[in-house]
Amino acid sequence: MRPRFRSDSWYLVALFITLISVGSILLVLPLSQAGYPGNATHISYIDALFMATSAVCVTGLTTVDMATFSLFGQTVLLLLIQLGGLGIISFTSLLLILPGGRIPFRRISTIRSFYVDGVEYDPKKIISTIVVTTLGIEAIGALLLAWFFMQAGVLNYGYYGVFHAVSAFCNAGFSLFSDSLEGFSKNPAILTIIMLLIISGGLGFIVLQDVYQRITRKRRYLNYHSRVVLGMTAGLILFGFLIFFFFESKGTLSDFSLRDRIMNALFQSVTPRTAGFDTIPQYALSQPSKVFTILYMLIGAGPGSIAGGIKVTTIFIIIILMIRYPDPAGDIRIGKHRITSYTLNRATVYFLKALSLLLLGALALSLIEGHRGVAFDAIVFEVVSAFGTVGLSLGLTPQLSVAGKMVIIGIMFAGRIGLVALSFSLIRAKNYDITYPEGSVLLG
Amino acid sequence: MRPRFRSDSWYLVALFITLISVGSILLVLPLSQAGYPGNATHISYIDALFMATSAVCVTGLTTVDMATFSLFGQTVLLLLIQLGGLGIISFTSLLLILPGGRIPFRRISTIRSFYVDGVEYDPKKIISTIVVTTLGIEAIGALLLAWFFMQAGVLNYGYYGVFHAVSAFCNAGFSLFSDSLEGFSKNPAILTIIMLLIISGGLGFIVLQDVYQRITRKRRYLNYHSRVVLGMTAGLILFGFLIFFFFESKGTLSDFSLRDRIMNALFQSVTPRTAGFDTIPQYALSQPSKVFTILYMLIGAGPGSIAGGIKVTTIFIIIILMIRYPDPAGDIRIGKHRITSYTLNRATVYFLKALSLLLLGALALSLIEGHRGVAFDAIVFEVVSAFGTVGLSLGLTPQLSVAGKMVIIGIMFAGRIGLVALSFSLIRAKNYDITYPEGSVLLG
Ligand SMILES: [K+]
Ligand SMILES: [K+]
Repeated sequence: MRPRFRSDSWYLVALFITLISVGSILLVLPLSQAGYPGNATHISYIDALFMATSAVCVTGLTTVDMATFSLFGQTVLLLLIQLGGLGIISFTSLLLILPGGRIPFRRISTIRSFYVDGVEYDPKKIISTIVVTTLGIEAIGALLLAWFFMQAGVLNYGYYGVFHAVSAFCNAGFSLFSDSLEGFSKNPAILTIIMLLIISGGLGFIVLQDVYQRITRKRRYLNYHSRVVLGMTAGLILFGFLIFFFFESKGTLSDFSLRDRIMNALFQSVTPRTAGFDTIPQYALSQPSKVFTILYMLIGAGPGSIAGGIKVTTIFIIIILMIRYPDPAGDIRIGKHRITSYTLNRATVYFLKALSLLLLGALALSLIEGHRGVAFDAIVFEVVSAFGTVGLSLGLTPQLSVAGKMVIIGIMFAGRIGLVALSFSLIRAKNYDITYPEGSVLLG
Repeated sequence: MRPRFRSDSWYLVALFITLISVGSILLVLPLSQAGYPGNATHISYIDALFMATSAVCVTGLTTVDMATFSLFGQTVLLLLIQLGGLGIISFTSLLLILPGGRIPFRRISTIRSFYVDGVEYDPKKIISTIVVTTLGIEAIGALLLAWFFMQAGVLNYGYYGVFHAVSAFCNAGFSLFSDSLEGFSKNPAILTIIMLLIISGGLGFIVLQDVYQRITRKRRYLNYHSRVVLGMTAGLILFGFLIFFFFESKGTLSDFSLRDRIMNALFQSVTPRTAGFDTIPQYALSQPSKVFTILYMLIGAGPGSIAGGIKVTTIFIIIILMIRYPDPAGDIRIGKHRITSYTLNRATVYFLKALSLLLLGALALSLIEGHRGVAFDAIVFEVVSAFGTVGLSLGLTPQLSVAGKMVIIGIMFAGRIGLVALSFSLIRAKNYDITYPEGSVLLG
């Protein structure tokens, strides 16, 4: 009867702890600091740990500027992003796709419900497809970005193209520019490439593959999951665009031309789920825009993707729950499909647990940082950003105390690994031989 | 398939709109103003409407001081509180208790699930019992309060005793003292009486009656509902007491003796669910205490009571959902009782809809008041206070613009009537003759 942490998830935990440990040790070396070997700067271990965790979890929150790292240090961060991203996407895709028993560390019983539309795969082939797809998309993105960075007069445009393409597709949001992409807010080409990379990274491998097979006519229809993810993604982007365009046209976007206003409102709608680049300073947003950004950071993108958050499918189920009634079997009919009571329950529990974790995180940070006058909305913004592996910031993160940094490190880890583990936690059905009387409680 | 607003609820809406309309017109009359007939003050109609809504919904938020009203005006407010409170408690208790078909305006099909442990009642008897119980408890409270107010040197102690007893039992939180009960923070007798009135008002009629029957040995056991409500109430009070004692001992309670520190931490734990008196200024609370107060305001008290919020039973179910797995039938076993999938679904949907309403309210107020620099936590505090019919304030309410006051009036009404209507909305089960394929979406 008790919830159990799935043993499979421990592999993910072990992978991430290893990556973070090795990464943080590499990052604290003088070799990783700017100015090495002559006059190397120095960062504390807590900052190295923070940056390594942020990179592996593809969060993108930073306590120190990227310019404080040498090329070696920046490459370490890029590798951590790539490995953390591939780790998550492979692990979740495998668990989502496989019909059972193929990966030795997994239990058969946990898989059936993740079986999608009769597709069966070989794990090795899945992973190699994921790696090839990821590197392929990143390579195209890097080439395009390098070209437009060159046009924009960026030195080292090749390196900057690669770094930002990986950071964008992995939804990491790390930028070599100290003001993120604010310098390119009037460069629609670069914004478009980055947005396309973010969105494709956020759809998830299953959807990408499904779309690919549909385009190459190997399949006649997109599966239900893909349609939900694509529909929710399009709807959220459009809705967010309208919201930010409306709320910011007289604020942060007031100096922009109509074209740039559209591009930046679109970017602000895309980036919280869950890339974390910014083209306009987040602290300057109006209050309703900040609240909407927090909501979007919480929602996140598609499951089996590199992006974080509680996922668009969870929100889809939550919305369905609110507007439809279940049939006697507890299932809900939507269009020509049934959402089973099992799925409904999992989504609800996942949502509630995520909210509880978030609340605990915000309370912990409030306890540590609140007494020195940090506003609670700034705390919630940073906590949701860390939890959803977003990386947007109102500016609080670099000012955190060591204890505060520890809390955010914990939240980034919980938001990345905890949510994945949670989403795959097994619901064990048990038959009772005794029927207990109904415990009637009134809800009024 | 579509959710429907139960027609019964329209009776409640009509009752409340009538009370609010008549009340606001009476309150705006010169007769209701202090200084009448010589030099009567003047309040705007929006303030009269605000005060009438706040009284009928037993919220307790105020835009003008009680001292701006004459004895007549104050009596109007007291009557509105009493009638609004009795209206809610009668309506919800009737719907919760009755096995069906007894009240002409109700549909039989909606009743079965509110049938508690085989108890059947005559509606007229229920209402008269509710009125007698309410007036009886309030009378005892008024006598005790009058005595201790006299001891404390309050003029008009009889009138003050009656007003505060009604306001406390109805969980209204209106006070004739402009600083609420802050002047009595070192008077444990008065705090104890007020707390007992608040708690008994918040348990709900069903629990009060059950406890009474248990004490008079008419029943051998308390029913499951009563045990859950009493257990949750005791647990929440104790937990909140520890939290506030811990968070405030070096803050707002630092000047108090240990006895007064205990009494005021206890009071701060009791008052947000959902009375709204305060003994310490809420704006002076530490940030974690404010967050906890918001949480407690959201939770509220027992169903079928005068108190607001999403109710302790809903939170009970939400907690159960998070820590237990459902069996194949979708029910969850807890102790020797089953919580049915029907109850689980209702609690979840209720919780989600309440959160959505709250979010909408906060966004609306943020849109109106945010641009002039009001912090978002202050907005959330006021919105949750209005929504949960609590009445605690960080001081924002009196400063609201007319549009902001309209929003809070709407939220008070939605939190009072909307939540009741929501909680009694009917889940219509329908048999499908076609079985649709499962719409499998992945949640990871
Ligand atoms: K990110
Ligand atoms: K109240």
